[in-house]
Amino acid sequence: MSAVLARHNVKVFGRGEQPMLFAHGYGCDQNMWRFITPAFEDRYRIVLFDHVGHGQSDAAAFDQSRYGSLQGYADDVLAICRELGLEDVIFVGHSVSAMIGVLAAIQEPERFERLVLIGPSPRYIDDDDYVGGFKREDIEGLLDFLDSNHLGWSSTMAPVIMGNPDRPELGEELTNSFCRTNPEIAKHFARVTFLSDNRADLPKVRTKALILQCSQDVIAPEAVGRYIQQNLPDSEFILMQATGHCPNLSAPEETIEAMEAFLRAPAPEQVAAS
Amino acid sequence: MSAVLARHNVKVFGRGEQPMLFAHGYGCDQNMWRFITPAFEDRYRIVLFDHVGHGQSDAAAFDQSRYGSLQGYADDVLAICRELGLEDVIFVGHSVSAMIGVLAAIQEPERFERLVLIGPSPRYIDDDDYVGGFKREDIEGLLDFLDSNHLGWSSTMAPVIMGNPDRPELGEELTNSFCRTNPEIAKHFARVTFLSDNRADLPKVRTKALILQCSQDVIAPEAVGRYIQQNLPDSEFILMQATGHCPNLSAPEETIEAMEAFLRAPAPEQVAAS
Repeated sequence: MSAVLARHNVKVFGRGEQPMLFAHGYGCDQNMWRFITPAFEDRYRIVLFDHVGHGQSDAAAFDQSRYGSLQGYADDVLAICRELGLEDVIFVGHSVSAMIGVLAAIQEPERFERLVLIGPSPRYIDDDDYVGGFKREDIEGLLDFLDSNHLGWSSTMAPVIMGNPDRPELGEELTNSFCRTNPEIAKHFARVTFLSDNRADLPKVRTKALILQCSQDVIAPEAVGRYIQQNLPDSEFILMQATGHCPNLSAPEETIEAMEAFLRAPAPEQVAAS
Repeated sequence: MSAVLARHNVKVFGRGEQPMLFAHGYGCDQNMWRFITPAFEDRYRIVLFDHVGHGQSDAAAFDQSRYGSLQGYADDVLAICRELGLEDVIFVGHSVSAMIGVLAAIQEPERFERLVLIGPSPRYIDDDDYVGGFKREDIEGLLDFLDSNHLGWSSTMAPVIMGNPDRPELGEELTNSFCRTNPEIAKHFARVTFLSDNRADLPKVRTKALILQCSQDVIAPEAVGRYIQQNLPDSEFILMQATGHCPNLSAPEETIEAMEAFLRAPAPEQVAAS
């Protein structure tokens, strides 16, 4: 079998035919979908994978130049799709993987039926009228801190990113996941992520998309989610009651319900034909 | 994705490239490999599936005529291999699935690198000099009993087949698995299994094979394993200390060790080239 599947520790299961491909965020791995996939495995074919340097992927496959922009990660998503012969894919991307899915869907629109974007942001840094939520010097400071102390950064930032301080086990899980990630790859991926600007890509998307926006998300504030909805042609915006940046872990029921409602709506082709 | 993968609840995982395809026996499902696969998932690509009517397969796909002989089940194995593009497959078959793998390997020898046959039997009924372990009337009686009372047969026979009465939880697990299997399919599959005669197929196998024979196996006595070794050209015979018919459940360490030793030996092509 293909080296691609081994490299990304791809796992395929479920008793449906239409594929649902889940892409985890920075410093996470496929295990972060464990509360979501049981709701879908009866009706879909579930495909999980780990980004290079994360989870049980092959970190030796990392290459600074290939992964010098999010496009390298999108190329991996497409390679997995090709290897498995996936069509009509429902792509579910968390955090930075939302934009990775956007780039993949622009490149091969025929492969994707829908995008579910959980806590997406096309740009984290404010710019004129655009509110990203961070000043450039804040991002530079975060990245310098991460460069100098991967474990310290992880244990400081993960609980902030997770939110939900009344359930400290959630922040602990994210801390441990950040800490387990290959440090050199994590530093590089954080830089690529937090300095990315994919605003100009949004209007190019031809795939129907759902934007799942958390309340009180320090990484992706509400204005960012609404910006995406205004610029991504066929998109819906849902403001969740869930807080923090990881509703797949902190509010799986609400996440599943929102996904179900989105998936129940007719597929784009059916709408056009009716 | 393909209907084949959904129909058989195919699960694919592991961080190696060479595929190891596990086929469960009568009245079982892919869960029966749970003590074996962890030893191999770092180095192989693990492929699990459920035969139609078993586990979480699609029982609606059952067809009396297609599954009127073991060839129908072998065709399913090959369909899964084709769908996933498997090459150099290490096929691991338990009980009746050992012969199913033999039939698949005869039909597409280029797909298979090795066969691991756990508790195989090419014929269960004695015939002249051939010792299968059962008289024809015994088999007819067993099948009549099963036809009249699926649950009663399952709870009577499963503990006998499992052996290891000092660990009753093993027999209970097999009983529960037999009872969960679709009754009509189970009755039909038992009849096809116990009346099969694949002795003439053994000399046609071109794939290197390991025969894992249990001590004191009421389903496949030692003479049957030795018969296979004498008639399957490139085969090795190991008489395990394990007793009963399911060493994958009752003696996973010894099963894994025997598989590891077999896999460490050079592949057939390498032998030929040296």
